[in-house]
Amino acid sequence: MKKLLSAVSIVLALSACETIKNAETLNTVKQNTSENIHSPKNIIMVIADGMGPAYTTSYRYFNDDPNTEIIEETVFDRLLVGSSSTYPARVSGFVTDSAAGATALASGVKTYNGAIGLDVDKKIAETVLEYAKKQGKRTGIVVTSQINHATPASYLTHNESRNNYNAIADSYLDDGIKADVYLGGGWEYFLREERNLVDEFKASGFQYIDKYAALSSLKENTPVIGLFEKKGLPTALDDSDKNRLSTMTKSAIKQLENDKGYFVLIEASQVDWAGHSNDIATAMAEMSDLAVTMEYLEQYVRENPDTLIILTADHSTGGLTIGAHGKYEWHPEILRTMQSSPMEVAKTFTENKITQTRLASLLNFEVTTEEFQQIKIAKDIATQNLRTYKQLSESEKLNKRKPDIGYSISKAIKKIIDMRTNTGWTSGGHTAIDVPVHALGKSSEMFNGKMDNIDIAKQIFLLLGKK
Amino acid sequence: MKKLLSAVSIVLALSACETIKNAETLNTVKQNTSENIHSPKNIIMVIADGMGPAYTTSYRYFNDDPNTEIIEETVFDRLLVGSSSTYPARVSGFVTDSAAGATALASGVKTYNGAIGLDVDKKIAETVLEYAKKQGKRTGIVVTSQINHATPASYLTHNESRNNYNAIADSYLDDGIKADVYLGGGWEYFLREERNLVDEFKASGFQYIDKYAALSSLKENTPVIGLFEKKGLPTALDDSDKNRLSTMTKSAIKQLENDKGYFVLIEASQVDWAGHSNDIATAMAEMSDLAVTMEYLEQYVRENPDTLIILTADHSTGGLTIGAHGKYEWHPEILRTMQSSPMEVAKTFTENKITQTRLASLLNFEVTTEEFQQIKIAKDIATQNLRTYKQLSESEKLNKRKPDIGYSISKAIKKIIDMRTNTGWTSGGHTAIDVPVHALGKSSEMFNGKMDNIDIAKQIFLLLGKK
Repeated sequence: MKKLLSAVSIVLALSACETIKNAETLNTVKQNTSENIHSPKNIIMVIADGMGPAYTTSYRYFNDDPNTEIIEETVFDRLLVGSSSTYPARVSGFVTDSAAGATALASGVKTYNGAIGLDVDKKIAETVLEYAKKQGKRTGIVVTSQINHATPASYLTHNESRNNYNAIADSYLDDGIKADVYLGGGWEYFLREERNLVDEFKASGFQYIDKYAALSSLKENTPVIGLFEKKGLPTALDDSDKNRLSTMTKSAIKQLENDKGYFVLIEASQVDWAGHSNDIATAMAEMSDLAVTMEYLEQYVRENPDTLIILTADHSTGGLTIGAHGKYEWHPEILRTMQSSPMEVAKTFTENKITQTRLASLLNFEVTTEEFQQIKIAKDIATQNLRTYKQLSESEKLNKRKPDIGYSISKAIKKIIDMRTNTGWTSGGHTAIDVPVHALGKSSEMFNGKMDNIDIAKQIFLLLGKK
Repeated sequence: MKKLLSAVSIVLALSACETIKNAETLNTVKQNTSENIHSPKNIIMVIADGMGPAYTTSYRYFNDDPNTEIIEETVFDRLLVGSSSTYPARVSGFVTDSAAGATALASGVKTYNGAIGLDVDKKIAETVLEYAKKQGKRTGIVVTSQINHATPASYLTHNESRNNYNAIADSYLDDGIKADVYLGGGWEYFLREERNLVDEFKASGFQYIDKYAALSSLKENTPVIGLFEKKGLPTALDDSDKNRLSTMTKSAIKQLENDKGYFVLIEASQVDWAGHSNDIATAMAEMSDLAVTMEYLEQYVRENPDTLIILTADHSTGGLTIGAHGKYEWHPEILRTMQSSPMEVAKTFTENKITQTRLASLLNFEVTTEEFQQIKIAKDIATQNLRTYKQLSESEKLNKRKPDIGYSISKAIKKIIDMRTNTGWTSGGHTAIDVPVHALGKSSEMFNGKMDNIDIAKQIFLLLGKK
């Protein structure tokens, strides 16, 4: 084909390209027949859980170098091809949870919120990972949550509820091992008193690791399960490796590469968690880790053009807005210097005395006396509430939530950060806004324009050769 | 070219298409040389002021027919090609106003908030409309704001501040008449005591109309200025013609068609205004009018393939989120039946007694006793505040805003609608989220992927033949 692309034929091809594009748009149906499918050898599906368009946009301004004239383009900008709707099955309304969202992306079916790999009638919906495995490809998952959390589970198993964590972990073995690489958190589900799944994985030929350092010395051509934390990994801001998603991704791909190709799911799981707790500082650190991962993958596709990368989100979280309260401003400056999450800083002060100097030092930005007072008052109120709570009888405690001093301090810190940055939030849950779709590499044009979440799975099935 | 597209050559072309697409993506620069520019005869630029991605998404669910299995696809879905960043010149931070946003889209330069058709150094930046006129095309603007508002002004003139409404109106004549069709609101600026611009337009050969009905009997090949309201038109919900943007657009295009083609700016100006007042009911009605307009234009391009349509927004407004308060729900049902805006309903009760029956009748949905009480209390408080205000001395009044009973009632109504629908807002101003880009027709692929607002003008200049 490349020889065709002389100066003249480029013009001809572009013209044909345009005609086809217009025809496609007018018909509005993405039709693919087996004749015109160009299947990539490797498919890398990246899900940034909760990453609505406000996250990719705010990351651009967070990432901006104020000393240059321009606003620097991000990897998300370079790879954007369209957007996707995220609504679940009608029974669950317009706002999806992560289970139904991931099931749509993994299996191409709309389902009820909470379902893992099942349709609305609780029938098993085959996943693209399962189908890829059947085709002889290697498969893997790399996540920053526990590896049996909703998103990875929706690619690996089938369960009527995302909350059945132990059953989901068990199924990773009992239903047949479906992946060659599992990297993430969650050892408490795999090293249980009544069942040691890690030993079972080992007996099936897996190597087990529980430290990031061990990623650099994995045995080749040997499957691996790496569980680096009890549940989810520490947040990107607080982890020993602030780019742990990128670190795990590099190792996973090295492990997965083989003649028949691979399918891997990579999830930036904690963009969502930062959104749920309305924590813009942690959200930006998670987006940074994702950006570094995507930059690596972008380079990987240059070197391995027979690879397709898709990046999208299952939904947006928190109702994040860039600017709020009528002010036409957003100030990410303090977010760029922070080295610990508000919750991590708060933890320091649950037992220890809070001082303005120590607070500023841990937050790594100047704190005004007024801001310090707000945080101190939040701690004092929570401390008093906890004292009152402890004096209650056991029966009186039943209907009351135990006051959490760390939570109250971190909430006060986040409020100050939101005021400083002028960040807005409307929810501790999800919202229904369409999410960005990014793609690069072989057949990436199949993801252009407006997609629905189930279309993404359908296109991947097509590329895997499923009729 | 069409003969080329046999079964075999489609595959070849698609493959070439893909190679080019991948190369483009990898290079991340949209390169166009004069050899591969396919200029459309007609260019229709549509700006939906304030229409961030939450607006096109929520419109899909508002528009959904709950009696069908599927969620109906919208014209915005069919035409989506990517998204655009909206940030102004660095001096104004990351959140743009409509003047800088429209100047970027019209002239391809980043400027300070408030600037009309000027760069940061207050130098004139030529607009695509001006350039199209120079090329011998007919030009026009169709808006639902006053025709000298920020967005249309940024295509037609140059002024250091959007607030200089009279000077901007004057410039439409004094700087030379640049358009053949002006449709919208704002006669108070054109029929002033000290200057009658309408008479001057007439003296220059224009026909003047001030009623929608007159649109159906315009003289052909005669320029037209139509001003249908003192300032902006009534909201879509309250106007005598709920699809007035669509009505005006059809007439404008009929008037503009000619052998040399045309450039027209169409603005759904009041999506923004609904966003500023955090009014989801009015926002959805404005989106409906825009959708009908876009459906007409979509059909127009089918019949006139030598036409390009682009639809985007200058920014998002209000920090709208679909879902809020931790609930995974959005309920547009009551929005579908409303026939008057909250402000219009409120006006009825500023002088007249408010009753639950009358309120429900005007809102066109059942109102609970508790909701009625909330609205009644809002009126009572505002009435009391106004009474207190009136007793103040003139000097005491100086620093106080006069209480507005209608405003208070409408605010209470909107609060109820937000609770019913579970709609979230974070601001009475703009936010910085990237906005959707939609395109169809000849050379529409030039707007695919991630654009910046200035790129949109640059691509249009290229299509108009500017080197």
